[in-house]
Formats: sequence, C-alpha cells, structure tokens
Amino acid sequence: MAVGESSLGRLRPIPGVRLGTVAAGIRKPNRRDLVLFELAEGAHCSAVLTRNRFRAAPILLTEQHLAASCHPRYWLVNTGYANAGNGAQGLSDALSCVRRVAEQARCAVPEVLMFSTGVIGEPLPVDRIVRAIPSAFAELTDDAWEAAAHGIMTTDTRPKGTSSVISIEGRPVTLTGIAKGAGMIRPDMATMLAFLATDAVLDPVWARQALGAAVDVSFNRITVDGDTSTNDACALAVTGRSGVRIDGAGDSGRRFLAALSEVCRTLALAIVRDGEGATRLVHVAVAEAADEAEAARVAFAIAESPLVKTAVFAGDPNWGRVLAAVGRADIADMELERVRIFLNDLCVAENGARSGSYQESEAVARMSAAEIEIRVVLGRGDAATSVWTCDLSYDYITINADYRT
Amino acid sequence: MAVGESSLGRLRPIPGVRLGTVAAGIRKPNRRDLVLFELAEGAHCSAVLTRNRFRAAPILLTEQHLAASCHPRYWLVNTGYANAGNGAQGLSDALSCVRRVAEQARCAVPEVLMFSTGVIGEPLPVDRIVRAIPSAFAELTDDAWEAAAHGIMTTDTRPKGTSSVISIEGRPVTLTGIAKGAGMIRPDMATMLAFLATDAVLDPVWARQALGAAVDVSFNRITVDGDTSTNDACALAVTGRSGVRIDGAGDSGRRFLAALSEVCRTLALAIVRDGEGATRLVHVAVAEAADEAEAARVAFAIAESPLVKTAVFAGDPNWGRVLAAVGRADIADMELERVRIFLNDLCVAENGARSGSYQESEAVARMSAAEIEIRVVLGRGDAATSVWTCDLSYDYITINADYRT
Repeated sequence: MAVGESSLGRLRPIPGVRLGTVAAGIRKPNRRDLVLFELAEGAHCSAVLTRNRFRAAPILLTEQHLAASCHPRYWLVNTGYANAGNGAQGLSDALSCVRRVAEQARCAVPEVLMFSTGVIGEPLPVDRIVRAIPSAFAELTDDAWEAAAHGIMTTDTRPKGTSSVISIEGRPVTLTGIAKGAGMIRPDMATMLAFLATDAVLDPVWARQALGAAVDVSFNRITVDGDTSTNDACALAVTGRSGVRIDGAGDSGRRFLAALSEVCRTLALAIVRDGEGATRLVHVAVAEAADEAEAARVAFAIAESPLVKTAVFAGDPNWGRVLAAVGRADIADMELERVRIFLNDLCVAENGARSGSYQESEAVARMSAAEIEIRVVLGRGDAATSVWTCDLSYDYITINADYRT
Repeated sequence: MAVGESSLGRLRPIPGVRLGTVAAGIRKPNRRDLVLFELAEGAHCSAVLTRNRFRAAPILLTEQHLAASCHPRYWLVNTGYANAGNGAQGLSDALSCVRRVAEQARCAVPEVLMFSTGVIGEPLPVDRIVRAIPSAFAELTDDAWEAAAHGIMTTDTRPKGTSSVISIEGRPVTLTGIAKGAGMIRPDMATMLAFLATDAVLDPVWARQALGAAVDVSFNRITVDGDTSTNDACALAVTGRSGVRIDGAGDSGRRFLAALSEVCRTLALAIVRDGEGATRLVHVAVAEAADEAEAARVAFAIAESPLVKTAVFAGDPNWGRVLAAVGRADIADMELERVRIFLNDLCVAENGARSGSYQESEAVARMSAAEIEIRVVLGRGDAATSVWTCDLSYDYITINADYRT
C-alpha cells in the first residue's frame, strides 16, 4: 500500500553522469538489483551518512574514500543485503566489489564509493556482484535514472525520483535525484539511500554545506517507524557540465539551495508516502515553539506515537492522543492552556480541552483524506518545524513480520 | 490476546483497607467500573504520579490533596473516561465526585483522592458516578481486592494483582497490590494505575522513598508502545494494623523494600503480558554498560523499536534489528566490536558480526517461546538494567484503531 499516485515524472539526465542498472541475482532472481553511477572526470561529490553508531561496511568504506578525495568516479549500489553487522568480512567484501569496479575502469580504488541496502547481518554475495559488474559498465548511459530508481528498491512498492530545472541568468541548471526507503526510516543527518546530481558549477565546500542544509529540512524531518538505519546515505554529484557557476553567497546560491531542498523534500515525502503499510501521509506542523529543537521534539513525539499513528489509520480524530504525545515531549514548562491543536484548518483542542466549536463529523471529514495535517501551536515563541510521517497499519506488521523469513 | 496464564492468585486482605466495586454505567452498561477504597483512620499514603506535562484533572486534584495531608481516607477510581484534556470543567467534575464521597463519609474533601482511566478528552459522566457512590459505600468490605482488580480495567483482557507476606521477627506483614494497563504504556516515574496497601508500620517519609525506589525498578522499566499516559499513578496505603514496625535503615527495611519491589515488578510484568495485542513477553537485559542511564537508553531503544517488536511477533531471530537499535541509542563512543547479543543463553552476534557458531534453527527455537530474553552485553563497564516489553502484533492495530470509535 502507498499514499497517492505512483507516477514517476520525467527524470532528466545530468550531463556528466551515466548509469547502468542490471539484475545480478543478489537476493532474488530476475530483479534489477545493482546500479553503477559513473561521474565524469572533474565532478565532485558530497555525502551525508548515517549517524547510527553501527555503520555498515560500505558506509565505512565510502567515508574513508571520500576523505581521500572528493572526486570519486563511480558509485556502486546494491540492494538485497545491507552488508551491516558483518564484521571484518563485511569490509573485505565491500572492498572486493569496489576493487572490481576500479579494475574495469582503470581508476584508483578510493575513486569508487559503495552503498548497500537490504537485510542486515547476512553476508554480501560478492561473487554474484563481481560477476555482474562488466554488464553494469556495458549498460552505462546518461538517460537511465528511472531504471536506477527501480534498481535501488527494497520493500519499496514504487520507485522515487524527481528533477528540477532552474534558470540562472537565463541559463538552465538541472538537478535530478532518486531515493529508496520504506522502513527503518528515522534518518538522523541522513536518509536511506538518495542519489542526487547536478550539472551546476559549485564550490565543493559550499556544495557540502548546501547538501547538509537541504537534508536537514527534508530527509531529517521524516519518520516511518523511528528506527535509524545502519546504511543511510545521501550523495550529491556535481558535474559542472552546464557551465553555470553558482555563487554560494549570492542570489544564485539561495535559489540553488531552495531547488536542492525542494528536490530532497520531494524524495523524502515520496519515501513517507511509500512508508511500510502506509495508507495516509501525515504532515505534523508545530508552530510557536521556543526554538526549533523544541518544535522538532514535539513534532517527532507526535509523529512516532503508535497511538497517534493507529488513530490516523482508523481515520479517528483522537486529539487526546496528540495531546498526550505533546505532553511527553519533555518540555519542562509547557502550559497546557496555551496549546492549540488543529486538523488541517479545524481547531479541535484549545485551553486544555476540546474546542468549544468541536463537531465530530467535521473532524472525521478531515481525517478521512489521504493526506492530513496535524498542526500544534504551542504559544511559546516564534520557532516552527514540520515532520512528515505515515500511519501504522496491519500491513506494517505483515511486511516486517514476514521480511527476511 | 495475552502472554501466559491468566490466573489471579489469592489477593489477601489488608487490615485497615476496605473496597467497594460497583457498576456505575460510566461508559458501558453492566460492567464494574467504579472502585472505592476506604483506608482506616491513621493510615498514611504515598503516590507516584505521571510525568506527562499534561496531567489529567484527577491527577492534579490528587496531588493537591496529598500535599495537604498524607492521611487520605478514600481513593475513588473510575474506568471509562480519563478526565484528561477537559480543561477547567474536568477539574470541577473531579471535585464534584470527590465532594460526594466526602459528604457521605463525613470527612474533609482533601481526604479523598481520585484516579481515572479511559478515553482522553471526553467529559466525565459525573451524574452517573455520583449516583453510584452510595452503593460503593454499601459494598465496602475487606476481602474484595479481586473485584477491584476487575473494576479498574480498560483494554486489559485480564485483572492483575498479587500479594506477598513476609515475616519480620516472626510476625507476618502483608502487601497486596492491583494494577491496570495495556496500552499507552511507557511510565515515567509512575505507571498506569496501581494500588498497593500494607499493614506494616512505616515512617511516611521512608514509605514515599521506598515506593519511588520500587517503582523505578518495576513500572519504570516497562514499555508497551512508548506512550506515557496523562493519568499514570501508583499509590501505596500504609495501615500499620499488623503492629510490625519496619526500620527503614535496618534489615527489616531492606526486606520490606525487596518485597514491595517484587510486588511492583509482578504487577508491571502482568501489564506487559497483557500489553495490547501481546503474544510474547520480552525481557531486554543490558549488561556491562558505563552507567545505568546508558543501559536504560540502550534497553528502551531495543524495547521500543517497531522493527524488533514485529520480528519478535514473527518469531524471527533478526539480531540485525537489535544491533541497529543499539546503534541509534545515542552513545557516542560505542564500539561495535565489543557488543555481544544473546537470545536467552545463545550468543547470536559478537565482534560486529553474526556469531561464528550461529545456527538459525537454534535461534528460531529460542524465539518461539512465549517469553524470551534479548541480552545485550556492551563491554563498557559494570552497570546493568532490565526493561520488559511485548511484541507488536496485528491485534495492537485492531485495538487502537477501533478503540473509541
């Protein structure tokens, strides 16, 4: 199940990026499961990686390679197995795959990054991946983002991708991104897997900062089940092939950052819409907080409450559960009387009680939409934030009780 | 559904405590839903109340009354409606009920405490409660703890209670307790509702400290869904009728505290066994942590992970999900290589990977029991703690999507 339409818009090629997607038989037969990205010489790259203390082998390797050079030539991505919790063998397996790419491309090993997603704690089938690498090279072509979006899926029910074109002084700059993720979603400074590219000319240091800022308002503001993955990563390739230079401190920088944030937010929302078992998308908006950290604490307390999420699944305007979640968000001097709760435009609670104008039928109408907003106004200050989540349904249990067995 | 046997052992009367349970028709007809406790003159009382910032009206009233006197004569308990999120009306409604009890008993209003549980945000049916109070008085008798255990249930599928008798210098001291709670369970310095009584002679200050300590190792170490209720309360009545004086600083104090902790733990585990939708009881034991706070953080990260809980429901020894939960417990310098994970006696992960001796069939056998232990050894220090939780099943969704509608 998933919320809303499943159409993938047109994913525009980024000059300087080629992609090859193949079926390597990693975990299931006849399924596209291995993606190779090739970045043209001179491209640079930033990545935001998971904050989980237990990082998968490919994440450790990628971090190490990025520290050696910000000009990687290849990203190798597999689905099926996460290669996390595999100890020294995991690192050696990831290195074997990366070495094979370097060998074929005649580049240095640190010029290859690797990203993996899937089951934790089972060994990577290195042989099958290594055997498929030549076909991935043979497939490399620039207009192949859609196949790649399919190739990185795990429990996702649909591919996720988006493109954006902005005009800087009359010249087009393109941004394209794809993402995967449906469960174990509570990114902390990173997401599940997301791969972005642009043909803009960007200073590498500024690109890294811009990616961090964009991730903060997108992937770091979604949650499906509160679990942060060991493999989360969001990478941005900058090819510069448009020849359009972005001035980080100027207007073009602001506009590029806005476009990058929007691309990230589109992908992040696509992940929540396809959250495991999701039937509804919930936008939790918290306003009038003392500071943004407080707003985020309240928003996540609501967005991660199983009681709120099952009420949303049932279409039940159970604002009492929202109130209880706000109350346990660990804000010492919160005053119940100032808090107001809205379902979309409808005020359902104020002055510590049900709103005087409350009508159950109106509240039920708001809750029956596929996308709903729970807005909480704290009456404490000027800060606000948004978090997106989905409901908790029978299918979440089915998917996670059956997955792996 | 619930885990294990449902038999309620013999609940021993406590001299100086009488109970009356009636069907007041509060939310459902013909269901025992109102309980009156009468404490003999001279008894004293402590209570640990919810830390949720939004506290229900009865909690606010009870706190105020306990501050005025630690010698309340009555506890009035209703199920059906929580009387939380009802603003000024909620307080006035609670006061009306309490006033009626005081009137009938000819005692002062602050000598009556009130506890409510049920749906949040809907008004208390004061008339029906007030009308039933005389019958509750008429029912008062000392050997009626079992009926009271039934009378405080909400989504519970079974009553919860236990008694303990210890011998102090050859003379018996009795402790009896009952509890309710099945969802919105993540107590923070308090539980859902638990009512305890003893005939020991205790210093009131020491009794309060002992209750806090007992709650800390029992009700504060369980979680069903991570949600802290607005109405949590655990109250202890001390009647002194056994004439046996407990020396808080001496051996009898240590033994009484151990018995009180054990009674609380028995009730806390009964709550988890009856957790909404529970099919398995999970004991999460964390050892070799740097300090107890760290141990608790890791234990709750595991116990509250929907991915771990659905794996337990499926009987799937998915230690990778346990590892990922440990990794997101926000412990900065955790070393993956030192962590070991056990299912009961079986080591399933060590050195950052699946244990060398791992056999899927052995792990599956451990996971198929009704009660399982997930033990995580951090290799960082000497501190340890235990947290108990249940699995996440289809029935949790059913119960919480249907409740209230």
